Amino acid sequence: MKTILLTGFEPFGGEHSNPSWEAVRRLEGKHLHDGSRIVTALLPCAFGAALDSLSAKIRLVAPEVVVCVGQAGGRADLTIERVAINVDDAPIADNLGYQPIDAPIVAAGPVGYFSSLPIKAIVQALHAKGIPASVSQTAGTYVCNHVFYGLMHMASSRHAIQQAGFVHIPFLPEQAAAHPGAPSMSLSMMMEALMILLETSISVKHDSQISGGTTH
Amino acid sequence: MKTILLTGFEPFGGEHSNPSWEAVRRLEGKHLHDGSRIVTALLPCAFGAALDSLSAKIRLVAPEVVVCVGQAGGRADLTIERVAINVDDAPIADNLGYQPIDAPIVAAGPVGYFSSLPIKAIVQALHAKGIPASVSQTAGTYVCNHVFYGLMHMASSRHAIQQAGFVHIPFLPEQAAAHPGAPSMSLSMMMEALMILLETSISVKHDSQISGGTTH
Amino acid sequence: MKTILLTGFEPFGGEHSNPSWEAVRRLEGKHLHDGSRIVTALLPCAFGAALDSLSAKIRLVAPEVVVCVGQAGGRADLTIERVAINVDDAPIADNLGYQPIDAPIVAAGPVGYFSSLPIKAIVQALHAKGIPASVSQTAGTYVCNHVFYGLMHMASSRHAIQQAGFVHIPFLPEQAAAHPGAPSMSLSMMMEALMILLETSISVKHDSQISGGTTH
Amino acid sequence: MKTILLTGFEPFGGEHSNPSWEAVRRLEGKHLHDGSRIVTALLPCAFGAALDSLSAKIRLVAPEVVVCVGQAGGRADLTIERVAINVDDAPIADNLGYQPIDAPIVAAGPVGYFSSLPIKAIVQALHAKGIPASVSQTAGTYVCNHVFYGLMHMASSRHAIQQAGFVHIPFLPEQAAAHPGAPSMSLSMMMEALMILLETSISVKHDSQISGGTTH
Repeated sequence: MKTILLTGFEPFGGEHSNPSWEAVRRLEGKHLHDGSRIVTALLPCAFGAALDSLSAKIRLVAPEVVVCVGQAGGRADLTIERVAINVDDAPIADNLGYQPIDAPIVAAGPVGYFSSLPIKAIVQALHAKGIPASVSQTAGTYVCNHVFYGLMHMASSRHAIQQAGFVHIPFLPEQAAAHPGAPSMSLSMMMEALMILLETSISVKHDSQISGGTTH
Repeated sequence: MKTILLTGFEPFGGEHSNPSWEAVRRLEGKHLHDGSRIVTALLPCAFGAALDSLSAKIRLVAPEVVVCVGQAGGRADLTIERVAINVDDAPIADNLGYQPIDAPIVAAGPVGYFSSLPIKAIVQALHAKGIPASVSQTAGTYVCNHVFYGLMHMASSRHAIQQAGFVHIPFLPEQAAAHPGAPSMSLSMMMEALMILLETSISVKHDSQISGGTTH
Repeated sequence: MKTILLTGFEPFGGEHSNPSWEAVRRLEGKHLHDGSRIVTALLPCAFGAALDSLSAKIRLVAPEVVVCVGQAGGRADLTIERVAINVDDAPIADNLGYQPIDAPIVAAGPVGYFSSLPIKAIVQALHAKGIPASVSQTAGTYVCNHVFYGLMHMASSRHAIQQAGFVHIPFLPEQAAAHPGAPSMSLSMMMEALMILLETSISVKHDSQISGGTTH
Repeated sequence: MKTILLTGFEPFGGEHSNPSWEAVRRLEGKHLHDGSRIVTALLPCAFGAALDSLSAKIRLVAPEVVVCVGQAGGRADLTIERVAINVDDAPIADNLGYQPIDAPIVAAGPVGYFSSLPIKAIVQALHAKGIPASVSQTAGTYVCNHVFYGLMHMASSRHAIQQAGFVHIPFLPEQAAAHPGAPSMSLSMMMEALMILLETSISVKHDSQISGGTTH
């Protein structure tokens, strides 16, 4: 039985809520089939501060699995991120007013880290339940990628963390109502999807050999 | 207290279900706040046959309000259709194998009919409930537009029908799971949206003066 | 040998140029293969005023063919408009600050007019020359549709006008450079496309029986 | 005066031409302002074979700058790639019928390499000339990313290569004509853009501090 840390973000970019925290906070204390327990944390949408929060929570709860969740307004499905890259390049300022451009997240850190979640098996499991999902080749260059990279960097030296990764979720319908043409997903489906993602992560030993790639 | 006819379509284009019928059939027999009662009908996805079905049902139940619902795979929100045009131009064959090109729906009929639903007030009411919705300037040239045009043509000569119109709804999530990147909406939100649409239609006397237009 | 009136618009919506006028003005005085001559006019991007200009020019040059061209920022190809509808519903104010909502263009006018250009044959001819093009089912509800509807209304009572219609063209590349992700088309291709459109219009007697429709 | 190697790809995915090679081959032997000379090469669209070709050409011409160009059907602008990742995950088979899934490009190679081109200054220079362009955070997981990664891996150990990178270009108009709604760019603009990209690459010492990032 493992401890699973699941994180969400506070709102940013003018939104009044962030679907990642709305979905994540409702899973606090839930148990997976094998008895593993979910612990949650809210991260600030701010470079540096977000990783400080994540790091403190990891020290506190010593999780075996860490999955961070972020909002991807404009995407239509759950996107399981494949890779984090070592750069902050912010198109808008973060919630503390900071807008880094082409700054490394970890000085002299590697260019990237791959997710250690079974990203293909997760997509398969979600599709099997009728939930739109795909692999994503980029988590962007904002606070989401910053946290994803920082998480994988911690996991690379902290062997108690067996699996770690990042998933982007769409707008909630009430957000999409204010963004004409923007796709959305219901809160209950997001919650169900995160549970499936976690169950798949702890049960799959070898990821599925199916394509999740793109030509460009 | 009115009789409200709400129709959905059978699946087409290789889909296994059609969200319009999935949502509509669950509203059979429901009552609106003023006591008006919903009667539903399933229409075949076929030129001609769909209008025959609709016409027979209208004669049978003598509705004061008729709203037809169709699937718009690829659209992210409920789209309240503004206008039907007098042309069948099918990009794919219908469910009976018929693919008309540039054929009038009603010989010598007018070029178009505007919806008689309060389309702006409906969008406002849906937004107020956090449901993504917008006005659409085209219902296409396939069976949906065919039914919409035929409905408005019947309504133009059958004065018992006080209001009539058409609304397109997105894919269900389980459909979108098979169409990478396609937006979707939950079945429960579709059902809630249709109820709001009907409540608004029977209660609004003058449509809202807000823009629902596009530059092109 | 005919007189062909080709019109473009002044810039609107914060743009510094309008590709429709940039392309159209360079075709002033050009001749088609049969000797027909192109006359051009610049229309203001303003409800009412645009139709006054168009009407005056039509009285002046007595054209047999009239094609109005407008900018559709965000579309990737030449879109040959199928139908004009009798409504002004402006999402933004026009260049004179006027923003009508759900106002008829012609009081008691018909709901719509179909283009009298051979829209399918035009798309075919453009494709044959490697130019992206398609039929569009909506010209929007702004000044472009306003002019298109007004033009067809004039043509319906002015029998000297044998053919009339509307075509939308994409941003120019220099406009797209300021709109991240927006598609564009080169000015020279737009000019070539308009010439092909005109040649096809005056030479085709019966439009092609190919689908240019959409399911929604 | 440097030797600049510019490569394009053969057609793939059912296309009859590849805009990357169409544009690149027309620049063979051209000189930049400082006298540097462009050498070109055609790469097969095949995992492994493409890198063998590239490697052989690099040994042959000993370039100081290498820029590989690929087709990104569906993108509207020139996209200057920021990062290559160490994975082949092919959504379709390559031109030799090979479809690797989640295979490393270089066993035990680093997860990623950043481009050593001044990607922000290139975007700025292109915008200044009215050419649509942006930074891209992913080159996909197909042969383009494969070549980009392999190129940067070679450059990391071959110090004669001072700068290397990858750029994706849209469909040509004649390709887009067969893909309804797909954006395109003219061949002459692609050629002009590649010349600007190369001139900027060899003249800029420090990349511009402007954002080219995305929130996700």
